[in-house]
Amino acid sequence: MSKEQREALDAVLRQGDLDTGGEVLALRAAFDELMSQIPVAPDIRQTPIDFGGVDGIEVVVGEPSPDHVVLYFHGGVYVIGSAAASVSLVGDLARRTGYRTVTVDYRLGPEHPYPAAVEDAVSAYEGLLSQGVEAGRIALAGESAGGGLAVAALLALRNAGTPLPGCAFLMSPYVDLTLSGDSLAERAALDPILGPDALRTRVPDYVAGGDAADPLVSPVYADLRDLPPLLVQVGSHEVLLSDALRLAARAASDEVAVILDVTPGVPHVFQAYAAMLDEGGAALDRATTFLTSHLNGSA
Amino acid sequence: MSKEQREALDAVLRQGDLDTGGEVLALRAAFDELMSQIPVAPDIRQTPIDFGGVDGIEVVVGEPSPDHVVLYFHGGVYVIGSAAASVSLVGDLARRTGYRTVTVDYRLGPEHPYPAAVEDAVSAYEGLLSQGVEAGRIALAGESAGGGLAVAALLALRNAGTPLPGCAFLMSPYVDLTLSGDSLAERAALDPILGPDALRTRVPDYVAGGDAADPLVSPVYADLRDLPPLLVQVGSHEVLLSDALRLAARAASDEVAVILDVTPGVPHVFQAYAAMLDEGGAALDRATTFLTSHLNGSA
Repeated sequence: MSKEQREALDAVLRQGDLDTGGEVLALRAAFDELMSQIPVAPDIRQTPIDFGGVDGIEVVVGEPSPDHVVLYFHGGVYVIGSAAASVSLVGDLARRTGYRTVTVDYRLGPEHPYPAAVEDAVSAYEGLLSQGVEAGRIALAGESAGGGLAVAALLALRNAGTPLPGCAFLMSPYVDLTLSGDSLAERAALDPILGPDALRTRVPDYVAGGDAADPLVSPVYADLRDLPPLLVQVGSHEVLLSDALRLAARAASDEVAVILDVTPGVPHVFQAYAAMLDEGGAALDRATTFLTSHLNGSA
Repeated sequence: MSKEQREALDAVLRQGDLDTGGEVLALRAAFDELMSQIPVAPDIRQTPIDFGGVDGIEVVVGEPSPDHVVLYFHGGVYVIGSAAASVSLVGDLARRTGYRTVTVDYRLGPEHPYPAAVEDAVSAYEGLLSQGVEAGRIALAGESAGGGLAVAALLALRNAGTPLPGCAFLMSPYVDLTLSGDSLAERAALDPILGPDALRTRVPDYVAGGDAADPLVSPVYADLRDLPPLLVQVGSHEVLLSDALRLAARAASDEVAVILDVTPGVPHVFQAYAAMLDEGGAALDRATTFLTSHLNGSA
């Protein structure tokens, strides 16, 4: 079944007419429309919350462990996307882990360029700490730009001396806004969703005249020392494959525990399609094993 | 405890006076002497076997599943080491997986340079098939040169059209005998066991006037397409760190399912020290999860 599933998904995604390089407001509307078509499973309960001054949605399934939290950052090249649009995937993670999850509406460019998103991610994390959640029982997680944001938040927290989360789970992280990875060109024909031109169009919305190679904008250029264990999952049909490979190599050199987990033949953030793609569910199961093994008091 | 464990292990290994660059017969004797000091747990049962014309040792713990086999290749830069010297680590793997394991005495250089080792690895695998073991229920595994040999065997089997094993588990694989990895120099001070000069001395023993960049000698240069899922584990205190990183990157580009699993602060083939190093046992537990999920009829 899996080869058929992969091909069917690829065809569906190629039919989508989301032009990531287009005008921002139209792009956001089109993205929200697209994501609203993904059904949210009926067992997922959503509650709007505000913590640390940042809006978000608490997403739970069943009766989650009250002591463990996955703090989640959605994707969308730092310009589009929303907490609401991430609920289906976050809920799937909540169901598999049994943890409480919170997905954050961090501020977006171009209205709010870097460092607004990083500030909001840090505020949300500090909000959890101020609720009395133990740092070592929190995991950061994110997809695409949200994966990059999770790493940037870890760097900001480390630099500030704040107690760090127990681990981080990054799906297809976007961690090089200089767009220097080999896969940008090499994988363009294979990637059904993202392309280098569209990405390039959106970079100034977030970087806004700053340095795209700033370590908190592009963590492939960061010193990652002292970060908690990282799980990096990526598909091979992605222009961002190099981002994942180089982040893992950098983590290894910087003495950070890292697992790079590559699934062949699947697209950007393939875990979002777990309902129709066996590889998506299998990857989330491996992520659950990772999270469980690295959060304090978990088992 | 783990930081103390890592430092204690590092100190022990640095006291060892194994000179991998020394004279071959003395080196083999010193290596066997060293390895004979590692206790073999009393629950491990060893049986000498011959299959496919190649000598080996069957290693079991308890009552293993008769249908699943881990076919194991020891390390030693293709010049030293033996099946006997690998029994402690192989037995640990047998205990954790519940599988039958077979560790192979493939021929060594300089008496038997490439491709003797690859021929023996393939013969041993074909010997298992001729015993009626299903290909998809066999995992290849190996440490250091044995990890490289496992990949070379996969390539030879693929090229010959032989049914492939279900997966392969590679610990600190030695997969670039051109010694071109950045970590050869960058990690030399951190690595308590191996150094670039000693490795360089031993390369001609195996390559013997051939091409060190031959894909079956140095699989980082191979087209890895159609290989089964790979788990690559490596420590960050290794001159061979780059070998693991580049093998994983190559696998990802070649559409092979690959997990790269980096443990910081530990040496070459740290899994061998699981009895005194928590990271070793944790890595073998992750390997067990990987093997179980990829072998047919396993659970």
